[in-house]
Amino acid sequence: MSNAASTAPELVVQTWFNTDRPLLLSALRGRVVVLAAFQVLCPNSIAHGIPQARRIFETFAPDDVAVVGLHATFEHHDAYGTALLNAFLHEYRLKFPVALDRANPAGPIPHTMERYKMRGTPSLVLIDRRGLIRKHTFGAAEDLALGAEIGALIQEPPAESHARISVA
Amino acid sequence: MSNAASTAPELVVQTWFNTDRPLLLSALRGRVVVLAAFQVLCPNSIAHGIPQARRIFETFAPDDVAVVGLHATFEHHDAYGTALLNAFLHEYRLKFPVALDRANPAGPIPHTMERYKMRGTPSLVLIDRRGLIRKHTFGAAEDLALGAEIGALIQEPPAESHARISVA
Amino acid sequence: MSNAASTAPELVVQTWFNTDRPLLLSALRGRVVVLAAFQVLCPNSIAHGIPQARRIFETFAPDDVAVVGLHATFEHHDAYGTALLNAFLHEYRLKFPVALDRANPAGPIPHTMERYKMRGTPSLVLIDRRGLIRKHTFGAAEDLALGAEIGALIQEPPAESHARISVA
Amino acid sequence: MSNAASTAPELVVQTWFNTDRPLLLSALRGRVVVLAAFQVLCPNSIAHGIPQARRIFETFAPDDVAVVGLHATFEHHDAYGTALLNAFLHEYRLKFPVALDRANPAGPIPHTMERYKMRGTPSLVLIDRRGLIRKHTFGAAEDLALGAEIGALIQEPPAESHARISVA
Repeated sequence: MSNAASTAPELVVQTWFNTDRPLLLSALRGRVVVLAAFQVLCPNSIAHGIPQARRIFETFAPDDVAVVGLHATFEHHDAYGTALLNAFLHEYRLKFPVALDRANPAGPIPHTMERYKMRGTPSLVLIDRRGLIRKHTFGAAEDLALGAEIGALIQEPPAESHARISVA
Repeated sequence: MSNAASTAPELVVQTWFNTDRPLLLSALRGRVVVLAAFQVLCPNSIAHGIPQARRIFETFAPDDVAVVGLHATFEHHDAYGTALLNAFLHEYRLKFPVALDRANPAGPIPHTMERYKMRGTPSLVLIDRRGLIRKHTFGAAEDLALGAEIGALIQEPPAESHARISVA
Repeated sequence: MSNAASTAPELVVQTWFNTDRPLLLSALRGRVVVLAAFQVLCPNSIAHGIPQARRIFETFAPDDVAVVGLHATFEHHDAYGTALLNAFLHEYRLKFPVALDRANPAGPIPHTMERYKMRGTPSLVLIDRRGLIRKHTFGAAEDLALGAEIGALIQEPPAESHARISVA
Repeated sequence: MSNAASTAPELVVQTWFNTDRPLLLSALRGRVVVLAAFQVLCPNSIAHGIPQARRIFETFAPDDVAVVGLHATFEHHDAYGTALLNAFLHEYRLKFPVALDRANPAGPIPHTMERYKMRGTPSLVLIDRRGLIRKHTFGAAEDLALGAEIGALIQEPPAESHARISVA
């Protein structure tokens, strides 16, 4: 995992699904966050990214790991909308919060994709308990290596403890 | 395969994709027709039905077997439209003709699904060279048995030859 | 399928399994025969060849299609024996007759492999109802195309009928 | 992972493969050890256990994780021997050390299986840097959860450091 970790920027969201109110990454500090970017019509997202995000959601305790989905695309904008995402989440039985990236009128790349400099879908971002980006992959990731990285991040102390130890 | 075969009814179509003009089953007489019904957000269609339809399209000679896709659904009607289907066919690289079933204002079941009494997706209908329905399955079908049935239908004489033999 | 079909030679067998007495291909005339050559330690045989042979055995009626296994190898001869084959057939729950190819003291290639000029495992030989070799593949074969070929061979008349029709 | 961890007993071995000299678990202290028990004729070992052991071997740094294979069986003893294991390791391209469990003349269960109270194959034992058994599973294990457990064990301090910290 990279050493020069930067703080994960907040998502810029058009619509949230599977959550009562907008979700802030800053409110998830203390937990490892897995941000899983996908696209409903991307074959690799459907075959690999989405099932892996669901496995992560089902494998780890919610107090340790929060899974957040992001529907992110720089094409087919007219094909995607709230009705489609609702139907998709229903059919694929996804229970974790999912954000629909906010389109940018100035160009094809929506705001969150641009902030994270995503190359496409599926993309996966690992954010540690302190809110730092520790890994950012494009394409299918191996479960074993990904599990090891999440398992290692879970072992790290959250921000406050870490600070206290550093001070001491 | 069933003995009491009935003639396959024509599709009732809102929009055709991957074809310059509307396609009639009657114009495909002489070929075995595989009608593959799917739904973009149906996990089993995406995991099994669509890849199998593509394998059929790539395995058999077009003069022997015509593959026709049908987007058929009795739910999520507001999620589906021309832009979505176009994007889907592009992303999944499907080259065979696909029909978007025509919605029925009187109820959730669109016209072609109703005519064929389809139970859902994926569904697969095998139509012989004479236009008779020889098999109709719901759910994932095994490649080996399906291949054998298509292979057997290919061996059957087309309508005219058959007629001539019968007369003689 | 090839046109210049030759008669399938009889197997040269060290030991038969899953059958009370030695099996002759000539005694299977009238049925399509699928000869599936495998090796217990060949990863592709275990991952593809053996499961496919079992699917063929389970898909087709025994009066139409006979499946015959052949353990064939030009290496690791000292690793294979009756005890191993018995254990293998038990663990993989194979019910069709299997022949252990007879070693040739003059070289590494056993007799049946040599007669059939097999290149390795998995290999698959399709023999029609009259005993003619109609297909011979090395490596994994696709279920759909293979099913179509078997389905077509089943439609062909057996030797006697064929003779009668020819005479008439 | 279990809390009441006990020290992993040494393997009782008839023959070692892929190593110049007998391997002692005590000599692997400081590394996480994955002991992967399999059987050449066990379908689940071949489909799941062996590929997973190889993925573990290829994913983690050898200084962090040592993979040790164990051929363990309470049946088919006459089918297994050195020639078979050599051929198997060659065909499946396994590079990590593998032990052939030593048969017990007094019964069907070989010595190492008995020491570890293994229920069959595939079995997987996770041993931490201090030599303690932290997990023992029978059957296919999920890569994601297994990766997380190995990733967490890698984060733990080895014996000496731990002792020093405890003393301080």
